Amino acid sequence: QQSIILQRDLAHVRKQLRKPLVEKLRRERINSSIEQLKSLLGPEFLKQQPDSKLEKADILEMTVSFTCKLWKTAH
Amino acid sequence: QQSIILQRDLAHVRKQLRKPLVEKLRRERINSSIEQLKSLLGPEFLKQQPDSKLEKADILEMTVSFTCKLWKTAH
Repeated sequence: QQSIILQRDLAHVRKQLRKPLVEKLRRERINSSIEQLKSLLGPEFLKQQPDSKLEKADILEMTVSFTCKLWKTAH
Repeated sequence: QQSIILQRDLAHVRKQLRKPLVEKLRRERINSSIEQLKSLLGPEFLKQQPDSKLEKADILEMTVSFTCKLWKTAH
């Protein structure tokens, strides 16, 4: 009985320890996609001030308008 | 002199208090763009299991491949 409780505790502790790692991998996937979108937006970006610090939110907003425009061109 | 220090402290406290708000607005801009991208991806999404819980990372990865495909169609 005690051994079962101990195993359950151990499983719980392991899960808790894994959480930051899972979160890290999730953030990495998000950041990697945003970097790829940034490079896709290349020509759009040249219109920006070259010294402007682009935030993730800026890149995503530009992706929305870029994808809308592409969609209209393609259809 | 003391009044100047007090004003500086006050400005610092105000800035610290504003930080979570600025962060909140940033997250809202990011999440709003991701929601818009999700709706742009409409037909692509139908190919997914309808009961699959899509994470932000999934949506962004699909956006990358969707935008690449659109770009090739448009050029």
